[in-house]
Amino acid sequence: MSNLYDEANGLEKALRESTEYKELVALYEQVNADESAKNMFDNFRDIQLKLQQKQMAGQEITQEEVDHAQKSVALVQQHETIARLMEAEQRMSMIIAELNKIIMKPLEELYGAVE
Amino acid sequence: MSNLYDEANGLEKALRESTEYKELVALYEQVNADESAKNMFDNFRDIQLKLQQKQMAGQEITQEEVDHAQKSVALVQQHETIARLMEAEQRMSMIIAELNKIIMKPLEELYGAVE
Ligand SMILES: [Ca+2]
Ligand SMILES: [Ca+2]
Repeated sequence: MSNLYDEANGLEKALRESTEYKELVALYEQVNADESAKNMFDNFRDIQLKLQQKQMAGQEITQEEVDHAQKSVALVQQHETIARLMEAEQRMSMIIAELNKIIMKPLEELYGAVE
Repeated sequence: MSNLYDEANGLEKALRESTEYKELVALYEQVNADESAKNMFDNFRDIQLKLQQKQMAGQEITQEEVDHAQKSVALVQQHETIARLMEAEQRMSMIIAELNKIIMKPLEELYGAVE
């Protein structure tokens, strides 16, 4: 068991020291330091979150809500720093997914596909 | 990046070689080798999965379905090997959750709470 936690801590450290994580932190701080960028990004996140929650609750999403969400995506994508932050977040999500895939191999082998 | 994958592979190996994983595999094979135990366990899993899917789809779960699920839990818990397998699965779930918590620390620090 202790070896498991040592290994997990090693991976945590490697993630923290990765270029991709450092870039993500730098961009996140840059957006947060700029009040108008921060507001734009927070608003975008709110809209996304509310849509996700409705979807998960099985509630219907109106065309108006879809349009509103698409407009907020288009808006943040025009902001250079936010666009770069979102790209960095996407790269980080992909890394996390790949790491999880590696770590979960023993369980996937056992169960076929892990839910 | 290569360091990240080295570390993930190290963790994967530690998980595969852990007592908890080996115990889980042994119990899983023991249940699968016994046809009546396997049928009982598969049936239990089916019932659980269907309830989960209904819950996630926001569909109502009837009292009859709850009773049926509880009976199938009581049934598998009376089977010594299946009960031990389920305990081993629970321990593995807790380990995975702890490992995830460790690995996700850098992102949790960045975002406050990671969704
Ligand atoms: Ca290591
Ligand atoms: Ca770009």
